[in-house]
Amino acid sequence: MAIIVKKFGGTSVGSTDLIRNIAHKIAAEYRAGDALVLVVSAMAKTTDRLSGLAYDISQHPSRREMDMLLTAGERISMSLLSLALIEEGVACISFTGSQSGIITDDKHGNASILKVNAFRIHEELAKGKVVIVAGFQGVSAAKEITTLGRGGSDTSAVALACYLEADKCEIYTDVDGVYTADPRIVKHPKLLREVSSELMLSLCYNGSKVLHPRAVEFACKYGVQVEVKSSFTFAPGSLMTSEKNSLYKDKKMEERIVTAIAHKDKLLCYRLPYTDGVQSLLKGWQHEVYKYALDKGVLELFVEAKYETEIDYVLKTNRLENVAKEADLCFVNLIGMGLGYDAAFLAECLQLCAPYGVLRSINTERSVELLLPSQYLETAVSALHKAFIEDK
Amino acid sequence: MAIIVKKFGGTSVGSTDLIRNIAHKIAAEYRAGDALVLVVSAMAKTTDRLSGLAYDISQHPSRREMDMLLTAGERISMSLLSLALIEEGVACISFTGSQSGIITDDKHGNASILKVNAFRIHEELAKGKVVIVAGFQGVSAAKEITTLGRGGSDTSAVALACYLEADKCEIYTDVDGVYTADPRIVKHPKLLREVSSELMLSLCYNGSKVLHPRAVEFACKYGVQVEVKSSFTFAPGSLMTSEKNSLYKDKKMEERIVTAIAHKDKLLCYRLPYTDGVQSLLKGWQHEVYKYALDKGVLELFVEAKYETEIDYVLKTNRLENVAKEADLCFVNLIGMGLGYDAAFLAECLQLCAPYGVLRSINTERSVELLLPSQYLETAVSALHKAFIEDK
Repeated sequence: MAIIVKKFGGTSVGSTDLIRNIAHKIAAEYRAGDALVLVVSAMAKTTDRLSGLAYDISQHPSRREMDMLLTAGERISMSLLSLALIEEGVACISFTGSQSGIITDDKHGNASILKVNAFRIHEELAKGKVVIVAGFQGVSAAKEITTLGRGGSDTSAVALACYLEADKCEIYTDVDGVYTADPRIVKHPKLLREVSSELMLSLCYNGSKVLHPRAVEFACKYGVQVEVKSSFTFAPGSLMTSEKNSLYKDKKMEERIVTAIAHKDKLLCYRLPYTDGVQSLLKGWQHEVYKYALDKGVLELFVEAKYETEIDYVLKTNRLENVAKEADLCFVNLIGMGLGYDAAFLAECLQLCAPYGVLRSINTERSVELLLPSQYLETAVSALHKAFIEDK
Repeated sequence: MAIIVKKFGGTSVGSTDLIRNIAHKIAAEYRAGDALVLVVSAMAKTTDRLSGLAYDISQHPSRREMDMLLTAGERISMSLLSLALIEEGVACISFTGSQSGIITDDKHGNASILKVNAFRIHEELAKGKVVIVAGFQGVSAAKEITTLGRGGSDTSAVALACYLEADKCEIYTDVDGVYTADPRIVKHPKLLREVSSELMLSLCYNGSKVLHPRAVEFACKYGVQVEVKSSFTFAPGSLMTSEKNSLYKDKKMEERIVTAIAHKDKLLCYRLPYTDGVQSLLKGWQHEVYKYALDKGVLELFVEAKYETEIDYVLKTNRLENVAKEADLCFVNLIGMGLGYDAAFLAECLQLCAPYGVLRSINTERSVELLLPSQYLETAVSALHKAFIEDK
């Protein structure tokens, strides 16, 4: 009997119709005899709605109370999925993060999993039940409710798969798998049937929403087999392989290959004047981002627009003035093999993107990154995809 | 230092504006030095919205999963109230039923409190914090999430007040206290500053929504002092007294007094043919209601319309046919002293209500009950209130 952990994101459980559809498909797999653990996010928009209520009351809400508030979201989706499964004749039970034994530290809003103590899940699986688990949430040693921060449900799923020694961890989403570029932007991207963990990590760090990089790292560390697939069709999707370069095995060793193009949109660019004060300011907030920047001597910080209030606040508190800011920027990342520090390839990219007002280009060991105004995002990605993936 | 438990119902925390208003008023009391425990219901309409989602998926949802679903409601309201208090500079913390140590049996949807083990509340009060507790919910010995059923938050509040040996349990609501009749129906009802527990119980069993009868009984049993007051003004309301007949102490011993008029609207009347089958049918569902009826030889059962689906289902399952049903009925109850089996008084009532199509009248030891079509509810209550309360 295989144990399979399946994670359903917010858009996958965004309505009772979608939940019913998932339950119907799960019922078939259940009858086929697999042991199933379903990890669910909050229904799409629930988290935003709850956050909206909180910010209506407080500009800087307590993280502890925000965790209490937001964890209501998965409680709703998991019990609805449970009800839908019961309607399908499936024996099942839903558990909160706490009931599932997901023990975290006490960093509210961004907790780390310390251990998984999921004896209740084991018990219910042994009874032949499907177990539904609230993603994104856990409980501290002091019985405080915590959330795992961004990508939390992916991380919950992978952690449970690891603990349960699951045969597979399936990440269900609103696309068919991992593509060579975002299907909402490029007309005919290719579905990647196999994705090396390295490529997956690059894609996820660079804006692909299919899986959170934290979960990818977790899966790599503990050797959990991950598949990204569609929650609408349940059809085979993209399998993440631990084999480092499986995609390239038929290629000539030194050949330059662009495997996929990722992007991050709605970026702001802050330019901080370099003073001693900056360094101490940066310690407090998003220190990992800032540390990365400072380590490289880069003082232009790219911050996602949704955090604008927070960084504005940080800047104001610290009385930093004359901070230049540019909005509506995007990063386009070409990821593959043999791109490392290749000036000729960078020149090719820049020539292709000449009409799109590239503000900056960075050529790292594995990728080429281009910063440009958001208005050119679609045309630039499409042009690069055509030149380096479709036409190859 | 007085310990005060305050309970806020769904309409009292129905919007972020209302929550802010409550937080503002609580802050003043907090600074005055009282130890405060706030028990909250789900925001008005949240429970209906969540139930709606569940019934969209399942006509007969699992009670265990419904508990999981509905308890999300108080989690939302309690964390929002907590955030609003923090904005007011009040040190506070919110607890779920489980964290509060409200231990119940495992009857999902209608659990009974077995004990209160609220050491965490004590600890936080000792630190000078206001403690916010999710009403309506508890946890079983097996760590299953339970709800206390109807009137659950009132019961949570009274149970906590009892456990904490609180000086007072204040039930905040959307009216100023307990009136001689529903202010939405009668133009100038009198606010009762003192209400004997006996009268309160009669009012609450007969349709007054200010407090759940279960909580009244709990308060009587454990001698908890209860006050019903307005969540908008926080002004003094109606104090429930344990003294049996405090209201009547200045009256002549045998004088007939109508203290208040309660009503229940939207009733259905089912007439079951009396067969052996009926008795066994009635065991399964709402057996307390049915037992009451059977004990009295009454086979006309009054069931609130919201349960229609459920009773229809029960009837169908049991293949009971030819069940007559009347809809849109209401009960008007005159409650007071010296009304017991007084044929003259009943005649007076019936004469006054002659235009309103009274279908049935019951004269018990403490009250006169009139069954009439809902369309006459307002005029009948107003006429009775004028005749027996205003004009006396």
